[in-house]
Amino acid sequence: MEKPVIYLDHAATTYVKPEVFEAMKPYFIEQYGNASSLYDVGRASRKAVEEARAAIARCIGAAEPGEIYFTGSGTEADNWAIKGAVYAARKKGGKHIITSAIEHPAVMETCKFLKKEGFDVTFLPVDSEGFVNPEDVEKAIRPDTVIVSIMYANNEIGTIQPIKAIGEITRKHGVLFHCDAVQAAGTIPIDVRDLGMDLLSISSHKFYGPKGVGALYIRKGVRLENLIHGGHQERGKRAGTENVAGIVGMAKALELAIANMEQYTDKISKLRDKARDLILSRIPYVRLNGPVENRLPGNLNLSFQFIEGESLLLLLDMKGIKASSGSACSSGSLDPSHVLMAIGLTHEIAHGSLRLSFGEHNTEADVDYLVDALEEIVARLRSMSPLYEDFVKANKQT
Amino acid sequence: MEKPVIYLDHAATTYVKPEVFEAMKPYFIEQYGNASSLYDVGRASRKAVEEARAAIARCIGAAEPGEIYFTGSGTEADNWAIKGAVYAARKKGGKHIITSAIEHPAVMETCKFLKKEGFDVTFLPVDSEGFVNPEDVEKAIRPDTVIVSIMYANNEIGTIQPIKAIGEITRKHGVLFHCDAVQAAGTIPIDVRDLGMDLLSISSHKFYGPKGVGALYIRKGVRLENLIHGGHQERGKRAGTENVAGIVGMAKALELAIANMEQYTDKISKLRDKARDLILSRIPYVRLNGPVENRLPGNLNLSFQFIEGESLLLLLDMKGIKASSGSACSSGSLDPSHVLMAIGLTHEIAHGSLRLSFGEHNTEADVDYLVDALEEIVARLRSMSPLYEDFVKANKQT
Repeated sequence: MEKPVIYLDHAATTYVKPEVFEAMKPYFIEQYGNASSLYDVGRASRKAVEEARAAIARCIGAAEPGEIYFTGSGTEADNWAIKGAVYAARKKGGKHIITSAIEHPAVMETCKFLKKEGFDVTFLPVDSEGFVNPEDVEKAIRPDTVIVSIMYANNEIGTIQPIKAIGEITRKHGVLFHCDAVQAAGTIPIDVRDLGMDLLSISSHKFYGPKGVGALYIRKGVRLENLIHGGHQERGKRAGTENVAGIVGMAKALELAIANMEQYTDKISKLRDKARDLILSRIPYVRLNGPVENRLPGNLNLSFQFIEGESLLLLLDMKGIKASSGSACSSGSLDPSHVLMAIGLTHEIAHGSLRLSFGEHNTEADVDYLVDALEEIVARLRSMSPLYEDFVKANKQT
Repeated sequence: MEKPVIYLDHAATTYVKPEVFEAMKPYFIEQYGNASSLYDVGRASRKAVEEARAAIARCIGAAEPGEIYFTGSGTEADNWAIKGAVYAARKKGGKHIITSAIEHPAVMETCKFLKKEGFDVTFLPVDSEGFVNPEDVEKAIRPDTVIVSIMYANNEIGTIQPIKAIGEITRKHGVLFHCDAVQAAGTIPIDVRDLGMDLLSISSHKFYGPKGVGALYIRKGVRLENLIHGGHQERGKRAGTENVAGIVGMAKALELAIANMEQYTDKISKLRDKARDLILSRIPYVRLNGPVENRLPGNLNLSFQFIEGESLLLLLDMKGIKASSGSACSSGSLDPSHVLMAIGLTHEIAHGSLRLSFGEHNTEADVDYLVDALEEIVARLRSMSPLYEDFVKANKQT
C-alpha cells in the first residue's frame, strides 16, 4: 500500500491555489513590464499592482488602497512597522515599545534588536492559555510609549487575542497599535477600522498565496521611517522593483480566502475538534496547549508527556504525516518554544509538543489515520522512555 | 499595419525566460513545503534552495555556498550590506562610509538615511564619463571608515567602474568593499574573490529571472547586523519564509546568463553600437552620455538638445518603442537624473535624455525602426521648441 501524504502544517505554509497561480502566470513572461515605468508595458504591471492593492484594502477594511504597502514577507512588514514607528518617533522623545511574551520571532527579535539600540521594551506576560490581558497593556503605557505590537492570533497555540479591547486602549492613549495578523488573515475576518488598528502585517503564503510577498497596512496619517531605502516605489516608502506576479497572487488568494471563509473555517475547525477529542480520549498524559474557545480554527497544539517532540515528528513523517513541533521559523533551535514556556509549561513538557494545523484538503479519514498513528507512535516512544518507566513505577508504588 | 512592440528597457526589467519559469513552476503548487520545516515536503524545498545557493556561489566565484544570502530584491541587499556593516561596526568607533555620486538610489538613499542617523558619508565625484578615480577612494579613507560602496556598472550611463583597483585599495586599508552589481550580473563575468569584494548585491529580474528576489554575497568572516530580524532562515541572518520558486528562478536565470554570456553581450553590444552610430550621424545636437569603452554592452544613453525627455518617451511609446528617461527607480521624480548632473550636464541637457537598453530579442530591424522613429520625433519636437528656434536664429546671425 502506498504511504499517504497528510499535510498538517498549514500554519507553516500553504501551497498556491491553482486559481491563484493562473492569476499570477501572465506576469512572468508576457506582462513583464516594470510597474514604475512610464510606457504601456509598465502601465499594465502598474494597473495589476494597483488593483491588487485595492483588493487587499477591501479585504481588511482599510479606508483606501493607498494604505496598503507591499513587502517581501510578513516578517519584513513586522520589522518595518515597529522599527519604522520608533525611529520616526525618536526625535520627539518616543522610546518605549509594548509587546507580548508570545509574539512571532519577527516581532520578538525586532524588539530585542531595538532594545540593544537603546529603546525600552515591555514584554507583557500571558495567562495559561496564552491570552494578553488588555488591562496589562493599559498599565504598561508610559508617556514615551510609541507603539503596542500584539499579534492577532498565535502561530503555535492559536490563541486569538482581545484585539478590539487593546485597540480601544491604544486609541484612548494616543499610541500606535501594530497587529501581526499573519496567522489570522484568511481565517478570521479583519476590519482594521473597526478594530482600531494603525498597522497590520499579513503574509501571502499563509493563505494559499505565493511565498516571498507580504503587506503592511499603514493607516493614513501614521508616519514611519522607511526600512528599505532607495527608489520611488510604493510612493517612496518601500524601495525595490515591485514583485508584480507575487502581489497579484497575494490579492487573489486573500479574495478567495474571504469569499470561502465560513465554509473553510467550519471544515477545518470540525477536523481539528475531532482530532483533539479523539487524541485526548485515546492517549493518556496529553495536554492541550492554548484555549478551546477564541482559537484559530485549524490549530491544535498538544504536549505528550515523557516524549521528545523531534522523535515524534520523525516517526509521524515516516507515516506520511507532516506536522511541526512549534513554528517553522524557530526550527533549527534547540531551545524550547518561548510560547510554551510563557504559558507556564516546564522544559520537559514543552519538548514533547506537537503542532497540527489543518487545511482545505484534509479529510475525516486523515484525522482517523493521524490518531491511529499517534497512538501507536506515542506508545512506542514511551516504552523506550526511562522517564515514563520511572513514572509508571512511582505510580504503582503509591 | 500592426504597430510593433520594441522593448528597449532591459535595464529596468526583463521578462522571465521560459526555461526559468519551467524551473520555478513545481515550487508553487506541488513542492510547496516550507524550506525550514523538518519533514520531507520541507526537505525538497530546502534542497532546491541549497542547490540554488550553490549555483549562485559558483556563478560569482564565491568560496562557498554559505556566503550567499537570499533577499527580496537587489535594493534590500544594498540596504542590508551598508546598514548591516555600519551598525555592526559602530560600537568599535566605525562611522564613515565612502560611496560615489552616481550610485543607484538603493545605495544613495541608504547613505542619506545613515547620514541623518549620525554616520559620516563621503560622496566621491566622478569624471565626465562617470568613472570613479581609485585614488580618490584611497584619499577618502579615514581611520573610522567602515565601508566603501561602489557600483559595478552604472544603471543609467553604463560606466563600468575600476572595481578591481578599488578592491585592492580597500583590502590594503582593511575596510569593507560593497559592490552593487545589479546591472552587471548576467552581462559581465563576476569573480568576487579575484575582485577583492566583501559584499556584492544582485537582482534576479535584471537577468531574465523573476521579480521579488535578490541576493547578497557576504564574504565569510564579515560581520553584518541583520536588516530583517525574526526567524532562523538564512542561518539566522535574514528572516522570512524562503521564496523557494523565486530563488530557484534566480539561480536558473543566472546560470543561463553565464552560459550564454559571450554570445549575448556580443549581440547586444553590436546592436547598441549600430544604434549609437546611426543616431549620432543622422540626428544633430545629440550627446552620448557615458563612455565608449568600459561600458555595459546593452546600454546607450543620449541627450537630445532642445527636447524634453518625457515628450520623447511618450512619442516613442506611441510608435511601440519602450525606453526610459533614466532609471525606473527614479521615475515619478521631476528632478533631473543625479547621474547626469554628476557627469556635468546642465539641467536642460539632462532633461532631454534617453536610456536605451538592449536585450536578447532585439534585432537589427529594431534598430533601423528606432533610428527612423527617433529622427522623425526629434525633428517634430524641435520644430515646436522655442529654445531650438532661438538657437537656430542665433546661429544664423553669427
